Amino acid sequence: MPELRKDPITNRWVIISTDRARRPSDFVRESTPAVPSGRFCPFCYGNESKTPPEVLAHRNGSSSNEPGWSLRVFPNKFPVLGIEGDLDREGEGLFDKMQGIGAHEVIVETPEHLLSLTELPERAIEQVLWAFRDRINDLKNDKRLRYVLLFKNQGETAGATLEHTHSQLIALPVVPKRVLEELDAARDYFDFKERCLFCDLIRQESKAGDRVVIETDRFIVVEPYAARFPFETWILPKHHLSHYEETDASYLENLAWVLKSTLRKLEKVLERPPYNFLIHTAPLQEQPSPYFHWHIEIIPKLTRVAGFEWGTGFYINPTPPEESARFLREVGLG
Amino acid sequence: MPELRKDPITNRWVIISTDRARRPSDFVRESTPAVPSGRFCPFCYGNESKTPPEVLAHRNGSSSNEPGWSLRVFPNKFPVLGIEGDLDREGEGLFDKMQGIGAHEVIVETPEHLLSLTELPERAIEQVLWAFRDRINDLKNDKRLRYVLLFKNQGETAGATLEHTHSQLIALPVVPKRVLEELDAARDYFDFKERCLFCDLIRQESKAGDRVVIETDRFIVVEPYAARFPFETWILPKHHLSHYEETDASYLENLAWVLKSTLRKLEKVLERPPYNFLIHTAPLQEQPSPYFHWHIEIIPKLTRVAGFEWGTGFYINPTPPEESARFLREVGLG
Repeated sequence: MPELRKDPITNRWVIISTDRARRPSDFVRESTPAVPSGRFCPFCYGNESKTPPEVLAHRNGSSSNEPGWSLRVFPNKFPVLGIEGDLDREGEGLFDKMQGIGAHEVIVETPEHLLSLTELPERAIEQVLWAFRDRINDLKNDKRLRYVLLFKNQGETAGATLEHTHSQLIALPVVPKRVLEELDAARDYFDFKERCLFCDLIRQESKAGDRVVIETDRFIVVEPYAARFPFETWILPKHHLSHYEETDASYLENLAWVLKSTLRKLEKVLERPPYNFLIHTAPLQEQPSPYFHWHIEIIPKLTRVAGFEWGTGFYINPTPPEESARFLREVGLG
Repeated sequence: MPELRKDPITNRWVIISTDRARRPSDFVRESTPAVPSGRFCPFCYGNESKTPPEVLAHRNGSSSNEPGWSLRVFPNKFPVLGIEGDLDREGEGLFDKMQGIGAHEVIVETPEHLLSLTELPERAIEQVLWAFRDRINDLKNDKRLRYVLLFKNQGETAGATLEHTHSQLIALPVVPKRVLEELDAARDYFDFKERCLFCDLIRQESKAGDRVVIETDRFIVVEPYAARFPFETWILPKHHLSHYEETDASYLENLAWVLKSTLRKLEKVLERPPYNFLIHTAPLQEQPSPYFHWHIEIIPKLTRVAGFEWGTGFYINPTPPEESARFLREVGLG
């Protein structure tokens, strides 16, 4: 069972995967891709038995764990957290730990061995967004779980180990630090102004326009004012909503178009860069909040994070967001 | 002039290098090394005129910016912050910004084109540690500056763009977030226990022993309990001291041996991995503090940071620190 340990100096939790402990020699050739093109792919049709049994699938009458699906979700074969057991919170002198309880699932977005989500029709992307919603709503019933992160690693440099397009989900027994920071800042702002920080930001960005990439009646896509990375891109719903899993059908339909267009623009301007995207939503067991506002963060992997960034949490971004917004706004998708 | 911008959602500062704005095409072949082996090296003897004028050098009577030095410090030719001007703090609606005032210097550790600090004799490493101290003490006189980060990027994957062994220093007009977090946690602990968190941690680790790599009468080298990365390694002075620049001669002498031995052990066990090291010290303009304790963090670059880590600030470490400590403790340096 993996262990969750807390660093007393930064209050950061870490998952120590004691089950799959790695020896030094395992790291030496880290850069070799795990599954080169053309090899066996456990995410393609006919290989359902090579993955753990599915927890959700979109099917037209076919049986579980057989071909005939259009989207399939199952626990990661090498999960970083285990679903069975108790948290067993415990001290160890100065230190704090608990059992690594949680869920780690894979969302295979299509049975076709496509390399990018953007090769899918909008309708299929909408189904992926529904699957995200359904999985959060299901995991919410497990009261040990406090947070679900949905994310995608696209390309080897961004951490993908299998090329067949897929997303992942990790459900945690604690609200992670990075989300707590956003929640705290948003709560402070709300206490001070009685308005949502994100709603104010959306209004200001929409009016200024120079960091806007796409705007519809439901979503705004912006390059954040203090972007950490070149071409960092955020997608925010314009109507206030704290929990992603409460998003309604008309929003998910529009988001499929917005997300596909945004990723296609990034792929076109940056020649199919590796990237991560992730959804920040309010914690699982919390009521709808007037101050938090769910959103998607997309981080292309173009620069290296080095000693200065690790030491300070301060980022150096060589591309002003106004410049990257202009490139993305102007690129055609024809 | 670069700009410092603050993200209102996470209170994180970012340096936006408006001067060297990069176009999308600049990122496409990011992985090519900037200066391949055998090419012209501006850090070697005879090329002093290719760098900005030195601010510190260890010389035996030779003239400034000529050969004849054993260590040389000068401003980075492409600094991320500029030393001239006023901070000009300013709001922009919701957002906060200031001019990118600060210093960015390069410490060339030896005139020889060595690829690793560990190829130097201990005596030369001690001189590097003295140079770190001297530069902090000099920059302290500039009251606009609040923090100095000393760091090293070893290897291309860790962010090095020139192979000749060197360290860097960035002086900032704000105390960075990552340091504030350590300061806050250490202050809270001190308020509660009236003891230094780091001193308590050192006592506990020394007694337990299973995460200790090296221990002398002056320093302890440990794999932290909640290590974020495989083989993350910290070096802490055993005597309480908040500011690196107050370290005395006997400590710097011992640190040269401890640092060289630690890096050699990492190089041996992990076959010369890319790594970052950085010094966390108390803020420049603060009095000696009973709760903060300077230390060095060494982060080998073995795994990839992916969507989950970016989204949560939660790290997944596949190697328990007790295992990596055992490998490092047991490896011989003969």
